[in-house]
Amino acid sequence: MISFTVTPVGRIESPIQSVSSAPRQPDEGAPPAWLVFEPHYRDALLEIRAGDALTVLTWMHLASRDVLRVHPRGDATRAETGVFSTRSPARPNPIGLHDVEVVSVDGLRLQVKHLEAVDGTPIIDVKPRLDQKIALR
Amino acid sequence: MISFTVTPVGRIESPIQSVSSAPRQPDEGAPPAWLVFEPHYRDALLEIRAGDALTVLTWMHLASRDVLRVHPRGDATRAETGVFSTRSPARPNPIGLHDVEVVSVDGLRLQVKHLEAVDGTPIIDVKPRLDQKIALR
Repeated sequence: MISFTVTPVGRIESPIQSVSSAPRQPDEGAPPAWLVFEPHYRDALLEIRAGDALTVLTWMHLASRDVLRVHPRGDATRAETGVFSTRSPARPNPIGLHDVEVVSVDGLRLQVKHLEAVDGTPIIDVKPRLDQKIALR
Repeated sequence: MISFTVTPVGRIESPIQSVSSAPRQPDEGAPPAWLVFEPHYRDALLEIRAGDALTVLTWMHLASRDVLRVHPRGDATRAETGVFSTRSPARPNPIGLHDVEVVSVDGLRLQVKHLEAVDGTPIIDVKPRLDQKIALR
């Protein structure tokens, strides 16, 4: 089957420096972080404002891509399940979905809340959350 | 910035045969559709069952990738906005997010409700919806 090329549009800046120190889900204590975009994508950020609810798509570049079964939440006492029924970073295409809230916008830098990604993680897309915003635009 | 390769894990089978006939959002009348996976990914589907609430990630292979501003919902009377504040398929990395419900599972084929993708669209990932299922696993 034909493959496709994903080109990062920016990177995460975060105090989280390693996978082992990252919370598994954002309600488990993720610190504030920044989305830092490449200058080429400036126009794609038009109309994004403080208070917006976004889904950030990342490429989890440290994850293994050849894992098809995992123990849920890394707990070896639990039976293995297919990666498509988990949020494990290990999966054929290691794309992360992160629901965040924009705290502030400074040109190509967006400060956000509730982002559990490791510092340096590539950003590949940003979308408004349907439940929050599509009805308004 | 380094790029990454996305490898499809399956394809959508849908009665929607063209972009112009696709509803813009799934609550606008999307028909039942099937997620059809490659045999290699059989284990990744373990534990997915009828009734599950999933987010399907697709590669919107017909979309333009060099568009950074669009008229919201294609309405030329509305001011252009950045693609990152819309759900337009036209975006630097044309990844679609589709919230679906599994109707039935038949080996490598999952029938789903509420999927607005065009027939033949590549599937690149599947995740459980956090609000529906993570708490149970």
